[in-house]
Amino acid sequence: MLDHNQLAALAAILRRGSFEAAAAQLGVTQSAVSQRIRALEERVGQPLVLRGTPCTGTEAGRRLARHAEDVALLEAEATGEIGLAPAPGRHPLRIAANADSLAAWLIPALAEAQAAAPHLAFDVTVDDQDHSADWLRRGEVVAAVTATAAPPHGCDAIPLGRLRYHATASPGFMARHFPHGVTAEALARAPCMTFDRKDRLQSQWLAENFGEVPAPPSHFLPSTQAFIDGAEAGLGWGMNPEPLVREALAAGRLVPLLADAPLDTPLYWQVSRRMAPALAALTRAVRQRAARLLHAA
Amino acid sequence: MLDHNQLAALAAILRRGSFEAAAAQLGVTQSAVSQRIRALEERVGQPLVLRGTPCTGTEAGRRLARHAEDVALLEAEATGEIGLAPAPGRHPLRIAANADSLAAWLIPALAEAQAAAPHLAFDVTVDDQDHSADWLRRGEVVAAVTATAAPPHGCDAIPLGRLRYHATASPGFMARHFPHGVTAEALARAPCMTFDRKDRLQSQWLAENFGEVPAPPSHFLPSTQAFIDGAEAGLGWGMNPEPLVREALAAGRLVPLLADAPLDTPLYWQVSRRMAPALAALTRAVRQRAARLLHAA
Repeated sequence: MLDHNQLAALAAILRRGSFEAAAAQLGVTQSAVSQRIRALEERVGQPLVLRGTPCTGTEAGRRLARHAEDVALLEAEATGEIGLAPAPGRHPLRIAANADSLAAWLIPALAEAQAAAPHLAFDVTVDDQDHSADWLRRGEVVAAVTATAAPPHGCDAIPLGRLRYHATASPGFMARHFPHGVTAEALARAPCMTFDRKDRLQSQWLAENFGEVPAPPSHFLPSTQAFIDGAEAGLGWGMNPEPLVREALAAGRLVPLLADAPLDTPLYWQVSRRMAPALAALTRAVRQRAARLLHAA
Repeated sequence: MLDHNQLAALAAILRRGSFEAAAAQLGVTQSAVSQRIRALEERVGQPLVLRGTPCTGTEAGRRLARHAEDVALLEAEATGEIGLAPAPGRHPLRIAANADSLAAWLIPALAEAQAAAPHLAFDVTVDDQDHSADWLRRGEVVAAVTATAAPPHGCDAIPLGRLRYHATASPGFMARHFPHGVTAEALARAPCMTFDRKDRLQSQWLAENFGEVPAPPSHFLPSTQAFIDGAEAGLGWGMNPEPLVREALAAGRLVPLLADAPLDTPLYWQVSRRMAPALAALTRAVRQRAARLLHAA
């Protein structure tokens, strides 16, 4: 049996980045935090914290810190149900999501879930929708918004609907690069935008609508906001999520490259079964919000 | 002397993630790309490409790919000046920027620079303003928007002005968490938002205005858009960049936690002196745009 005060100290250090900040969070002295870590490292017979700015964890340290947070979260849920109020905002819930979901529809779900379960604090990791499930598989998050239907071992997958993307550009960009229409030839020369190395949306849309085309020149802009601003500023065309460009399309600041040629990405909410009790409020809010903003699966 | 067709093949693979996509970009067959890489790996006596999905580079491979892109960029600049038009959008310019600059003011500068130098394609890496200069120091980018004044060896630093942040929250959040005013005691319990482990803005603002306060509970939301949406949805309070919340503040969807208590982050444009000729149009656009949207240094 590991000592839970020691585990809490470890989790606080890795979360806050320093012994000092961990001490402030836990309301104890810094030397108490140091003693707990020393005792825990002796107990498990290996280093757990890498001193630095910020402090980070060894592999074993990160694993134990996750364990500590999971246990604390389940305990907050259990004690809440028997009428004890857990400390508000003090229980981190690690989830992974694709950047577009985070920007387009996930935040209201988080806010709703927190209203129902005020002890939660969300720790969101952003990765591509085709890779966010990896975080769950590795046990680094307890739930993920992902494009992967098949859940990893010990997890459930709930279909959320389809996030719709439109290939969009500014009217000025269209006039400059597609004066004779949006043809495969013109697309091979017009700069597009790509979110990061994992983003296949632009090439997927090109393949679906034009078959084999040479890879167009591309900017790399790893920010949902920058991606939309970049389209409006005429930097390139890109696949933008419908909820975020509806207004710009209606106002004519953006135009679709092709009429009626959206690309849909199916999204799933994958949750660790073990942690599901602690996730009930969030799962409910995520499903409701997705039903409102995504297209039916 | 290294073979520049081989170097171009290497750079294309690492940028596009596969031999196939590199072949499409270069307009040659896949087997030509494979032969070039084999020849280059023999020439330098070590592996350069790690086969996978996507293909990535060994340390040596990444270094040579950067070299290839730098040379191509300088060549595009030189040939442009003697009247030859380089291929539009085909010359990647790697820059690092903090997420808030990318979302708040950098995109129009990129669009302006591209209008002046259409051969450029921007490859933006996002990191905290206190860490974006590290990318330049490591030679992985040729310019960076950073809060660090002192440039690394071989680089110049141009002061851009100060990006102003306001501690903001929704009116509902204020009523719920600060019914008796924004006191140190209430701040220790009200959830804030933190962009990522490197983000010190919230704790800096707390320290400047309240001295030593216990670390408040925090959500971690690594997305500028999500950060603002999170504030509006009442998830937590956070330091938001003035250009992005001006409208929400004016409309009352967000309110400042304290009147007249902004936090300013000085920003610098650091550029590699070696690559400065290829960066002239961008540097000009960045300075002009910053002068318009940032507060005077």
